[in-house]
Amino acid sequence: MNILVTLNSNYIKQLAVMLTSLTRSNPRVKFDVYIAHSSLSEEDFDLINRSIDCSMCNIIDIKVPESIFEGAPVTERYPKEMYYRIFAAQYLPEELDRILYLDPDIVVINSIEELYKLDMGSNFFAAASHVKNKRLKKINAIRLNMPVESTYINSGVLLINLKELRKNQSIEEVYEYINNKKLLLVLPDQDVLNGVYAHKTIPLDAMVYNLSDRYLALYNANPKNLANRKDMRWIAHNTSIIHYCGRNKPWKKSYRGVLGVFYYYFENLAKKQVHYRSNSVSPSP
Amino acid sequence: MNILVTLNSNYIKQLAVMLTSLTRSNPRVKFDVYIAHSSLSEEDFDLINRSIDCSMCNIIDIKVPESIFEGAPVTERYPKEMYYRIFAAQYLPEELDRILYLDPDIVVINSIEELYKLDMGSNFFAAASHVKNKRLKKINAIRLNMPVESTYINSGVLLINLKELRKNQSIEEVYEYINNKKLLLVLPDQDVLNGVYAHKTIPLDAMVYNLSDRYLALYNANPKNLANRKDMRWIAHNTSIIHYCGRNKPWKKSYRGVLGVFYYYFENLAKKQVHYRSNSVSPSP
Repeated sequence: MNILVTLNSNYIKQLAVMLTSLTRSNPRVKFDVYIAHSSLSEEDFDLINRSIDCSMCNIIDIKVPESIFEGAPVTERYPKEMYYRIFAAQYLPEELDRILYLDPDIVVINSIEELYKLDMGSNFFAAASHVKNKRLKKINAIRLNMPVESTYINSGVLLINLKELRKNQSIEEVYEYINNKKLLLVLPDQDVLNGVYAHKTIPLDAMVYNLSDRYLALYNANPKNLANRKDMRWIAHNTSIIHYCGRNKPWKKSYRGVLGVFYYYFENLAKKQVHYRSNSVSPSP
Repeated sequence: MNILVTLNSNYIKQLAVMLTSLTRSNPRVKFDVYIAHSSLSEEDFDLINRSIDCSMCNIIDIKVPESIFEGAPVTERYPKEMYYRIFAAQYLPEELDRILYLDPDIVVINSIEELYKLDMGSNFFAAASHVKNKRLKKINAIRLNMPVESTYINSGVLLINLKELRKNQSIEEVYEYINNKKLLLVLPDQDVLNGVYAHKTIPLDAMVYNLSDRYLALYNANPKNLANRKDMRWIAHNTSIIHYCGRNKPWKKSYRGVLGVFYYYFENLAKKQVHYRSNSVSPSP
């Protein structure tokens, strides 16, 4: 299974936790993990390789060349890294048909095989939406020129149809959209994905594939869902991907939420893995 | 590592969850699991073997002979099974030096190797206490004739020094104690362990080796522990054994607690294990 991550050196610990959860929750899957970056050092990659259980996980260093997005609109607020997701098909090896992009502030607690095998047809992406409020949906749709009935997706979990993108993606269309919308973009890459590709994106169930504390709390507080509330048992059995998006991060003291326990569980496993490895390679007395 | 469990056929599912958590949280340990019982059938053992991941787990059927506790005081309220823990040294194979008894309403979330290697000296048992209240401690001590400073231990997690017990345990002493105390015993085997062996039992930290929702809530509500409260991160990193003792069971609808999430997590892993195994042995089309 192909996994794409993009990160800077501040997020290596979270990446180790995420990859530990990914491999533990999918023990029969081999992973090729493509790390797209502009600034990671050899030491960073050493640390990444030491931090994770590599037996089922092949780490591939993708230093994205500066030149690749030469004509792209770039400002301090919109650095080149914002194109790594949208234009994954431009720099990833040609033999890859699809890849699953995962933010590093994620843990995987159940199988993602079904998601990965999703029939994508001629769609470019699959992603889940955290926006259920009708008014917010409308505001986003107007702001970004989206078809009215489309949902604003969260791009932290993004299944990418590389084969289709290679055939039919227009780089110019994206550049033009950014140049036109510049001032209205809040989350650059996520807004662009929504604005340009809403009609080419398959909606996923956020409760299963992109569950955040905020989404869960809003869902359970909605009187419409009274008979169908999701408790920790439902989540442990049915949710595959938990996403600590926004500012409420379980590695911060200020964290408040019920889903952090999964992060702590895999954080502890990741820590022990490193311990074990460093013990097992220590010279015998 | 030797594990002792005793159960009837109503608790096989919980046993499967417990053993799944045990092997997952101690992936480099081989387990010999002795199942002491009077009434399990061959079908029950088939179910047990199908329900667990056997590769690191050797299940040993110990049908305890009726005759073994012939002179023991037995009533409807105190069946023979109450002696399985106290007299483990009497019926387990002689080559076993020690064994860890675990209730089936337990999940193991971290390594128990340190516990298992505990230096027991000439002590018979090691166990944790849930009783911190001074008045309750005193009541139990008086009721059971315990030394005043000793703590009333919970017998759900019990490290048993078989070698020492074989040498120095007096069966008659236990029978005599039961005959004298009969009417004052509330939890027969636990009371007897406390009453007869308080001075031969090493205290363990309940927060690490026998954590219940009730114990956690009382601890965190105590103003003395204000600066040292235990949150889910501390538990995920430091607690080894969670015990759903009492009536508050996570598999019941009435369950209220924060520790149930660990049960649900391993319940789900146990379920998937069975699925995977039954899939992998199905005939190909």
